[in-house]
Amino acid sequence: MYERIKGFRDFYPAEMSPHRETIDTVESVAARYGFREIATPALEHAELWTDKSGDDIVDELYAFEDKGGRHVTMTPELTPTVARMVVAKGQELSKPIKWRSTRPFWRYEQVQQGRFREFYQTNVDVFGSSAPEADAEVLAFAADALVELGLTSEDFDFKVSHRDILGGLLESFDRDVDTEAAIRAVDKREKVEPAEYYGLLEDAGLTYDEARQFDDLLDADDRQELVEFAGTDRVREAVGNLDAVLEAAEDFGAREYCTVALDTARGLDYYTGVVFECFDTTGEVGRSVFGGGRYDDLIEDFGGQPTPAVGVALGVMNSTLPLLLQRAGVWPEEALSTDYYVLTVGDTRSEAGTVVRELRSRGYVVETDVADRGFGSQLGYADGVNAETVIVVGERDLENGEVTVKEMDSGEETTAPFDSFLDAADRPTYDDFA
Amino acid sequence: MYERIKGFRDFYPAEMSPHRETIDTVESVAARYGFREIATPALEHAELWTDKSGDDIVDELYAFEDKGGRHVTMTPELTPTVARMVVAKGQELSKPIKWRSTRPFWRYEQVQQGRFREFYQTNVDVFGSSAPEADAEVLAFAADALVELGLTSEDFDFKVSHRDILGGLLESFDRDVDTEAAIRAVDKREKVEPAEYYGLLEDAGLTYDEARQFDDLLDADDRQELVEFAGTDRVREAVGNLDAVLEAAEDFGAREYCTVALDTARGLDYYTGVVFECFDTTGEVGRSVFGGGRYDDLIEDFGGQPTPAVGVALGVMNSTLPLLLQRAGVWPEEALSTDYYVLTVGDTRSEAGTVVRELRSRGYVVETDVADRGFGSQLGYADGVNAETVIVVGERDLENGEVTVKEMDSGEETTAPFDSFLDAADRPTYDDFA
Repeated sequence: MYERIKGFRDFYPAEMSPHRETIDTVESVAARYGFREIATPALEHAELWTDKSGDDIVDELYAFEDKGGRHVTMTPELTPTVARMVVAKGQELSKPIKWRSTRPFWRYEQVQQGRFREFYQTNVDVFGSSAPEADAEVLAFAADALVELGLTSEDFDFKVSHRDILGGLLESFDRDVDTEAAIRAVDKREKVEPAEYYGLLEDAGLTYDEARQFDDLLDADDRQELVEFAGTDRVREAVGNLDAVLEAAEDFGAREYCTVALDTARGLDYYTGVVFECFDTTGEVGRSVFGGGRYDDLIEDFGGQPTPAVGVALGVMNSTLPLLLQRAGVWPEEALSTDYYVLTVGDTRSEAGTVVRELRSRGYVVETDVADRGFGSQLGYADGVNAETVIVVGERDLENGEVTVKEMDSGEETTAPFDSFLDAADRPTYDDFA
Repeated sequence: MYERIKGFRDFYPAEMSPHRETIDTVESVAARYGFREIATPALEHAELWTDKSGDDIVDELYAFEDKGGRHVTMTPELTPTVARMVVAKGQELSKPIKWRSTRPFWRYEQVQQGRFREFYQTNVDVFGSSAPEADAEVLAFAADALVELGLTSEDFDFKVSHRDILGGLLESFDRDVDTEAAIRAVDKREKVEPAEYYGLLEDAGLTYDEARQFDDLLDADDRQELVEFAGTDRVREAVGNLDAVLEAAEDFGAREYCTVALDTARGLDYYTGVVFECFDTTGEVGRSVFGGGRYDDLIEDFGGQPTPAVGVALGVMNSTLPLLLQRAGVWPEEALSTDYYVLTVGDTRSEAGTVVRELRSRGYVVETDVADRGFGSQLGYADGVNAETVIVVGERDLENGEVTVKEMDSGEETTAPFDSFLDAADRPTYDDFA
């Protein structure tokens, strides 16, 4: 017996069904926002990651040398791929570009509760707009998707921050601070012990007292305090941009889901402006459900024209979003659904086939016997796939020009004329003949 | 500038749109047949392929050693994975099992016209039924999907054969024939020169005269000739099974798409019974569009209970099916579609936002300005995404309590009351106010 690979999952039909419903909902909300579907390769040249993050990142990737000697990797995220695609078409693409896609990604990391090596994301990105409305549209899409999935503002909270507020504050200390290291420290603020957190800030170049001062600023109620502390254009503009994004989010219906939380830093180095992470308000789902933000430099870093960008990646399937939906009690039922089972008794396949084909052509989910089985086991199968109506096409009934129509929920059944019962209604059921 | 990997494709929105429409059609036909969606890993242990096909197959795979020393491969096909999944759940799964899925696969092969290293398939399989109805259901699904995509019996032809007819005929020669090699030769009958074809049959153990005799049998009009030539139960049963499948296909509406063609052998060694391949009747698409068949031994080979199986894999996206649809003139248009563009002039984001949110909540595709652009470039964008209706929310119009509703096709426009135009119709357009 073969095993599947550790960190990978098989999804059988009943468990797949709520995932499909979730993905379809998220995709349809994205479609209504005008995010257009793209499809992207599972493999890329590894340098899309190593050039920016260094060769060590390979340890976290499914990277390998292909038969042609190329250093390739199974993609751990979408952003570098869409950046490459934007660069490749350059000026051909009219701006703003709004793309979406849902697919798996792969990361060679420690397998633990709720973390898999293969995980799925719906990515949504806007390229070519630095306006706060673009950030707000991404926030509004994400909020709308969660609401459409059944969540409310009681269930989730977008913690919103701005990279240049953090960066600008750090820069205003009279020291040689490693900003990226300090931002990574901030990202761990809620995840590690205070001593470790302050230690990381000290490693990044702050003194202990400065680290404390910096930490206090993160909790400032009035963002003007930050502007005054730093006294730089960078922080003033960043605070202004964050406020503008929140105002646009108000107009787009997403403000109520947002809380400013400057310690929301996002781990990835390519973010440049507003960043946000979605959290479970109850804390039961302990880590970030998903996140996104602005990454204005990446397209240029990849060799393209300067192109501002902002996006979000919602983890679906093997990810945290299903955990949040389950916690909130809005996870769709794990069940199959079937409109009709057409049951044959004796040599009635031809007549049953007529019924099956007609009902399928009307768009219904219709099953029939494909295993040469008897009445009982066909009925058991129909029950197993949650058939709503069973139509029994039996030799003796047919001699009388009839079929039997059985409502599975109630167990009630009645006969109907074979010649006309398909005409009784678009979806003929027990009620039409009882 | 980064390049994508050779043999892989990016799908931008306009080119993606007909692929999405095609996949949705195929998936929805499969759903109506009661094939239930599953999701499966991109990586498997390489031994799922090497145990059966030998280590050389690794040359055609994206196989590598992962960071934990596992010999893994990006999956080149679905069948071994679903076989593994059936074995893993064993008796828990009620039979027949009917599964479907659409996803990419990967094969390290020569890149040529229409052949990619990443290609997509919709796989549909029935497990647990040896009845001819199961084969017929797979044929009927495939035919129905093609018809739903706009093709007719004039466009495509399923060439149907049976492995045991070929195998049984070969066995009836009084020689030590390498059956699998001979079947691979038959698979090449239409693809190579006669001399090479007969040479391959001779390599498999037949004399030249026997090869000619065998070849004549493949074209026999009356299948009883085959039964008589072989004189074995195996061939008699295989012919009976093929006839039974064709009869069931008649009842299921698929017979008209099927032609018996005994030289349809399918390259893969795991097939055991009826096999079929779909061809373009005009021959313009020169190779098999897709194929499928019965593989009754694989689940047992994988360590499971004996479980008959039959399935088909329709190549979508980077595959031959789009070529056939294009050849037949039924390929969907490569275009974006947008119901509304809500255009802002001046400081009207809040009012525009109300309109946008309401129309999106009704399910329409609605875009608005997220790039702080002027009237002209917003209108150009709206045109670029094929917006049907543009609603201009302008400061001056709003002072009069009005918005402008513009029909993009005709260029006609009219004003409508801001307070009530959303109530005029579920989908308010120019016609409601002109």
